[in-house]
Amino acid sequence: MSRRQITGFSNPTVKALRALRDKKHRKASGTFLAEGLRLLTDARESGHLPEVLVMAEERDPHALLSVLEADVLAAGGEVIETSADILSKITGKDNPQAVCGVFAEFDTSLAALDRSAAKIWLVAQALRDPGNLGTMLRTGDAVGAGGLILIDDCADPFSAEAVRASMGAIFTQKVAQARWEDFLPWLRSGAGQLVAASLRDAVPYRGAPYAAPCFIMVGNESRGLPEEYELACDLWVTMPMKGRADSLNAAVAAAVLAYEVLDSLGG
Amino acid sequence: MSRRQITGFSNPTVKALRALRDKKHRKASGTFLAEGLRLLTDARESGHLPEVLVMAEERDPHALLSVLEADVLAAGGEVIETSADILSKITGKDNPQAVCGVFAEFDTSLAALDRSAAKIWLVAQALRDPGNLGTMLRTGDAVGAGGLILIDDCADPFSAEAVRASMGAIFTQKVAQARWEDFLPWLRSGAGQLVAASLRDAVPYRGAPYAAPCFIMVGNESRGLPEEYELACDLWVTMPMKGRADSLNAAVAAAVLAYEVLDSLGG
Repeated sequence: MSRRQITGFSNPTVKALRALRDKKHRKASGTFLAEGLRLLTDARESGHLPEVLVMAEERDPHALLSVLEADVLAAGGEVIETSADILSKITGKDNPQAVCGVFAEFDTSLAALDRSAAKIWLVAQALRDPGNLGTMLRTGDAVGAGGLILIDDCADPFSAEAVRASMGAIFTQKVAQARWEDFLPWLRSGAGQLVAASLRDAVPYRGAPYAAPCFIMVGNESRGLPEEYELACDLWVTMPMKGRADSLNAAVAAAVLAYEVLDSLGG
Repeated sequence: MSRRQITGFSNPTVKALRALRDKKHRKASGTFLAEGLRLLTDARESGHLPEVLVMAEERDPHALLSVLEADVLAAGGEVIETSADILSKITGKDNPQAVCGVFAEFDTSLAALDRSAAKIWLVAQALRDPGNLGTMLRTGDAVGAGGLILIDDCADPFSAEAVRASMGAIFTQKVAQARWEDFLPWLRSGAGQLVAASLRDAVPYRGAPYAAPCFIMVGNESRGLPEEYELACDLWVTMPMKGRADSLNAAVAAAVLAYEVLDSLGG
C-alpha cells in the first residue's frame, strides 16, 4: 500500500478510522487507534507497529516520527497524510496529536499469559471506567507487573480513553479478558496467590504474607467484588480508612497494594 | 420557600439548576450540585445541608431521604419534587440519581486552613482532570488528610465530575485554591514539609524522613511540576519505576505517597 494523501472528510478510510471510536467497529475490524508520537514510539520500541500510520500534513519534523514512518513502510504498512481537521475528526479531539496509528488488537486469552513472567499481576472485575482501566495498566508497567486480567464485563482496554490513560502501557503490559468461571480454574491450575482488599478476616496490607505470583484483584467501582469472588481469595488485606469513606478509587487501591507487594516481594 | 413541584422543562429553576454544570454559573451563583442520596447523606453528616433539595417524584421511600428532607426544610431550605426526565436534564445523566442538592461553595482561601489539624495535606499543581481531583479528595479522606490545596489553574473542585469522583470527600476535606506565589509564603509562615516525587537528589519514598504536617505535592498530568516548584521542596522522593514509563497517574502517585506517609507518621 505504502503512502497516500487524503483530503476529503467523506473518504471511506477516514470513516473507517473514525469508526474505531466505537467498540463494535473495533471488534469487527480487530484493530484499535492510539494517538500521539510518544505512545506510538513506546509501541514501536515494544515491538508493535501500526498497520496504518496517519500524520498531519502540517506537522513539525521529528526524528522519531521519521523512524516510525520508515518502519511502518518497511513492514508493509500504510502511511496516510491528511489535514489537522481530518485528524481531529478521526480522533474526536479538538486539538488532536499530529499522529495516530491503527494497531491490530492483541490476543487477550488467558492461555496467552505466562504467569511465571512476573511476580505481580493485576486483576479487575467489572471495571467500568476506561480511565481507571488505563491507569491500572500504567501502574502495572511501573511496578513491573506482568499484565492486567479483566474479569467479567469490563470497559474495553482498546478504547481510546483506556489507551490514552495507559500512557503506552497497553503495549507493554499483557491484557487478558475472561469470565470468572474461566479465570478461577486457570488460576488454580498453577501457582498464584489471589489477594483482595476486604474487611473479611483481613490482615493489615503492610507486611501481609504476599507470595509470588501475586494476583491483586479489585472490584467494580460502585459495587466492589461479589462475595463469592472475595471468598475465593487466598489473602484478604485491609488498608487504613481514617475518614468517612470505606473504600478507595479502584485504580488507587490497586496501586497502593501493588507498591506494597513490590516492596514485599522485591522488584 | 419550603416545598414545591416542578413539571415543566422550561421552568426557570430547572434552567438555573442545569446551568450549574457550567463553571461560570457556579461561580456567579456561588453554588454547586451534588447528586445521590449517599453523597447528600455524607454531606448532612458532615454538617452541610443543601440550600435546595431536588427529588424525583417516582423515588422509592428511604428513611435517610426523609431525614434529609426534614433537615433541609427545618433549615429554611427548599425542597423540589420533579420528574425523572427533568432530573436527568438537570444532571445531564441518562440515569440520574433520584435526588440531588444545591450547596453553597465553601471558602477556599488558604487562610481558612488550620495546618495543625492534620499530619498530611495533599497539594496539586495545575491538575486538569476533575476525576483526578475528586480521586485525590477521596484518598485524602481515606488517609485522614486535612485537605487538598489546588495550586495555579486546576480543574474546578465543584464540578459535577470532581464532586462525584470525591465520593463525598468534597464535604469532609478542606479545599483551598491559591497561586504558587501565595502558597509558598503561606507554607513558610508555619511548620510544614513540602514533598514531591522527583528524580532530583531523591531518596526512596519508603522510609524517607517525612515530618508532620507533610504536604505531598503532585504536578500537572502532562508536564509534571515546574522546576522552580520542585526546587522549593524540602524532600524529594522516588518511587520504583520498573517499566517503560517514568511516571504514575497524578492521583495514583499522591495516593501511594500518602499511604507511605501515613505509615511513617502514624494515623
